[in-house]
Amino acid sequence: MKDIQSMPDHRNIKIDKVGIKNLKLPVVVQDQRNETQTTVADVNFYVDLPHQFKGTHMSRFVEILNDYRDKAIDICRIEEILQTARKKLKAEKAHLELTFPYFIEKKAPVSGALGLIDYNCTISAALNGNDKVDLLLTVRVPVTSVCPCSKEISKYGAHNQRSLVTLTVRYNEFIWLEELIRVVEEEGSCEVFSLLKREDEKYVTETAYENPVFVEDIVRGVTEKLSRDHRIDWFTIESENLESIHNHNAYALIERNLKADRVKSDSKKTSRAEKASQSKP
Amino acid sequence: MKDIQSMPDHRNIKIDKVGIKNLKLPVVVQDQRNETQTTVADVNFYVDLPHQFKGTHMSRFVEILNDYRDKAIDICRIEEILQTARKKLKAEKAHLELTFPYFIEKKAPVSGALGLIDYNCTISAALNGNDKVDLLLTVRVPVTSVCPCSKEISKYGAHNQRSLVTLTVRYNEFIWLEELIRVVEEEGSCEVFSLLKREDEKYVTETAYENPVFVEDIVRGVTEKLSRDHRIDWFTIESENLESIHNHNAYALIERNLKADRVKSDSKKTSRAEKASQSKP
Amino acid sequence: MKDIQSMPDHRNIKIDKVGIKNLKLPVVVQDQRNETQTTVADVNFYVDLPHQFKGTHMSRFVEILNDYRDKAIDICRIEEILQTARKKLKAEKAHLELTFPYFIEKKAPVSGALGLIDYNCTISAALNGNDKVDLLLTVRVPVTSVCPCSKEISKYGAHNQRSLVTLTVRYNEFIWLEELIRVVEEEGSCEVFSLLKREDEKYVTETAYENPVFVEDIVRGVTEKLSRDHRIDWFTIESENLESIHNHNAYALIERNLKADRVKSDSKKTSRAEKASQSKP
Amino acid sequence: MKDIQSMPDHRNIKIDKVGIKNLKLPVVVQDQRNETQTTVADVNFYVDLPHQFKGTHMSRFVEILNDYRDKAIDICRIEEILQTARKKLKAEKAHLELTFPYFIEKKAPVSGALGLIDYNCTISAALNGNDKVDLLLTVRVPVTSVCPCSKEISKYGAHNQRSLVTLTVRYNEFIWLEELIRVVEEEGSCEVFSLLKREDEKYVTETAYENPVFVEDIVRGVTEKLSRDHRIDWFTIESENLESIHNHNAYALIERNLKADRVKSDSKKTSRAEKASQSKP
Repeated sequence: MKDIQSMPDHRNIKIDKVGIKNLKLPVVVQDQRNETQTTVADVNFYVDLPHQFKGTHMSRFVEILNDYRDKAIDICRIEEILQTARKKLKAEKAHLELTFPYFIEKKAPVSGALGLIDYNCTISAALNGNDKVDLLLTVRVPVTSVCPCSKEISKYGAHNQRSLVTLTVRYNEFIWLEELIRVVEEEGSCEVFSLLKREDEKYVTETAYENPVFVEDIVRGVTEKLSRDHRIDWFTIESENLESIHNHNAYALIERNLKADRVKSDSKKTSRAEKASQSKP
Repeated sequence: MKDIQSMPDHRNIKIDKVGIKNLKLPVVVQDQRNETQTTVADVNFYVDLPHQFKGTHMSRFVEILNDYRDKAIDICRIEEILQTARKKLKAEKAHLELTFPYFIEKKAPVSGALGLIDYNCTISAALNGNDKVDLLLTVRVPVTSVCPCSKEISKYGAHNQRSLVTLTVRYNEFIWLEELIRVVEEEGSCEVFSLLKREDEKYVTETAYENPVFVEDIVRGVTEKLSRDHRIDWFTIESENLESIHNHNAYALIERNLKADRVKSDSKKTSRAEKASQSKP
Repeated sequence: MKDIQSMPDHRNIKIDKVGIKNLKLPVVVQDQRNETQTTVADVNFYVDLPHQFKGTHMSRFVEILNDYRDKAIDICRIEEILQTARKKLKAEKAHLELTFPYFIEKKAPVSGALGLIDYNCTISAALNGNDKVDLLLTVRVPVTSVCPCSKEISKYGAHNQRSLVTLTVRYNEFIWLEELIRVVEEEGSCEVFSLLKREDEKYVTETAYENPVFVEDIVRGVTEKLSRDHRIDWFTIESENLESIHNHNAYALIERNLKADRVKSDSKKTSRAEKASQSKP
Repeated sequence: MKDIQSMPDHRNIKIDKVGIKNLKLPVVVQDQRNETQTTVADVNFYVDLPHQFKGTHMSRFVEILNDYRDKAIDICRIEEILQTARKKLKAEKAHLELTFPYFIEKKAPVSGALGLIDYNCTISAALNGNDKVDLLLTVRVPVTSVCPCSKEISKYGAHNQRSLVTLTVRYNEFIWLEELIRVVEEEGSCEVFSLLKREDEKYVTETAYENPVFVEDIVRGVTEKLSRDHRIDWFTIESENLESIHNHNAYALIERNLKADRVKSDSKKTSRAEKASQSKP
């Protein structure tokens, strides 16, 4: 049978990403408390395509995933999977994106009652021509937010709502999903729980009321903390408040290239030091 | 060319609904303040198919809609469209469902500032063998809900959130979308607005705090009012609260067949009256 | 602390369903090949509320699910969960709906290459006043459909597309998800796979071309088969074709109450038998 | 009343984007055939926030949109709206994103029967510190794609499906939505229609079969054409095929910075010309 995909293409146009989208697969994720957790991921898997080939071989993406599936895809082997994709598909670059619900068991703040909360997370891994894998982690974290303006101007009460906070980081050293989720939860008016007994509901209501935050405060609070974390090279933090008094949402976004900032700050220090040493007689 | 669809089918199985789904079209809706409003609808359009035919003619559904489109489909002509469908497609039954954002201009409660709010609405019309069209109206109404339990047990504050309330009614006499929306908005802790100046935000916060409602209260409040409206034969009312303290929602539903209830209550009265008259000497 | 929910409500309105929606939880499902399969479910959990109570206790729904979660909710214990809900929430009725991706490993038709396919499934269980649980199973099955009309009238080729077929059954005896999925897959022009090598793609293309089906044929084919299955009391079968030549979908639906049909048919037989015996001298 | 938002923030962190999301509004769009078209948009509207302010004034975003709404927001006034936002919100940058269904009336290829097709489009406009507005247009275009491999290896037939092609361009000179849509439609195996009579369906089936394209061909074809259009400075073109033989999609993406390419190519020409002139005696 003819291999149409391997035939030449004369338009001389390379393709940045080509592959498969929205394949569902079971995956195994590293879990800080329980070592591993099995969940279900939406998978996108791409390579680049040199200008001379007519098409990629779509079946090979599924084949590679199947070769690495022993019941479920182990996220620890993501770099291996990308290396295999690059080789089998004769590509320079390979990307794998996995989006999945991640469960954490939480204790209610007063009663200690246990309940699971799910966080929608994404791991996006890329090999870009060299041999070092580029990793992005995304956590989507629901929190409560009480409006500081509403609290200040009202005789009693304050409008509040569920906020969905999305943090994406590029990192140079292993970070637990739990750590990223924690950073975000500390910046809401209060974190959310799946199970709250009456005494817990009282605690959550009062705690949130004592800690009013704008959508702006949430993204600034996370920025302040992440800026001090040397493991993180770059991040975006977004908060979207499902405003209880509107039918639209409030939104804020901060993006920071910490790696570039560090380089700049280092070179400033160096140049100051140089100047200092030059000025010495 | 052969008309495959008109060929006989020997399985002897009639089809309840067959047609097209998710066609987008501009529509004109009756507007209580401005006479009409043009918006964009998702359209589902079905007929039944007798057991002897292999298939329906899908293109005729689009053709009929085009014939009735003079820039936009006029919702006033919905019965005519159904009659045409029944005739052209040789069917007994015809259904047309239109789902669209409907805009209402609202005044902020204190400043009077104007803003548009959209309500996702559905008109579902059916001709079922006889000549009377069966009409269902659905309005999806966002409101604020303050939790009565959280307010009662907390020293200050009370968790609140956006709730999405869905009301579907079968009616025997014309009802404005605005009327149905109003019924629902009165049962939230406070209605929502797109534009609120500071004085309005104070008003909305305090009003909501003074009127805490559970998801149960919202559906009961609407039920109480609709039960007295003779234009309504049947309804379902659902409320879904996007809980600000959880990552899941609270939900309540009531369904009532008012027409059947009226018949029952009438027959009771009649039988009592009969007994009364019989007992007369 | 005051128990607001247990306070009386004077509107005298009972609520049909009240509870929680869109809670995510790991679940264990029975798997025909591997005994069990762990996946992730969206959970809706409701009871009814008598007219005299102001509110239900939302936290108890989550508490019950947690009590039955040993890593994951076992779907075998669904009846037990409903009984517990009824008792703990002092309700007459209880409903639990679980929607989850279900994975089946399939062999490609020629090469035998293995690949996982996910089917979005729902188990909906209800206790309605008596002690027998009412169970509904839903499977959503993608298939290929080749248009018979397009094939007949065209010199070559035929438009085809992915169809999403949704089957919901009420059953009186255990049925595997795999059995329901199989019934649907046999009625498409060809079933779909995640991994197809070139020889498989040839097979799937040709098989589909040899078996053109309208959206009507898919629902009739399934109806024909299910009508002979005594385990099934009621079903709806829907097919939605993502038409490759349109931006809208083709759709068909059949609903059958087989249990009622059986009763009718039995009573006819009986009455014929009676007449026959009566006519005997 | 205190203006909490205007209070100082001491964290010294500027915010890249802050504003409102998912507000629905009627909009008026320029239409090549009918001058204008009224439709309904999802609106996102942001500014940046200097580090010294605690919060932005969310109500002003809605207020500005209302000031520019005379029944509907006119997309021609987008730059004015951004200037106003920058002024009223004391910001350096302002972004407005409008996503809406856009309708085009098409003639079926043989019968000439008329039907409307909707294309989901986005206009994203930004003022970034200077006075020139940066404009991005996105069109999402459904087409048919016939698989070249399936056609080549099969005795008859070929799998095909609906593809969703997304083109985003940054442009320096006015372009009609219709032009961008046209560019994409020419690269599918055939364009799609809402209304096709039997003779049209024959035409579309045969045309598509004669023009098989991979997902790679679609993005390359568009790239080839856009590379020659001097009005376009940058673009991304994505195609996602809803594979009829799989439950996942095939995907390809190309991104090109044509402006940068032109600068590079100009400087090459210049340097060659310089060398040439230098080498002259």
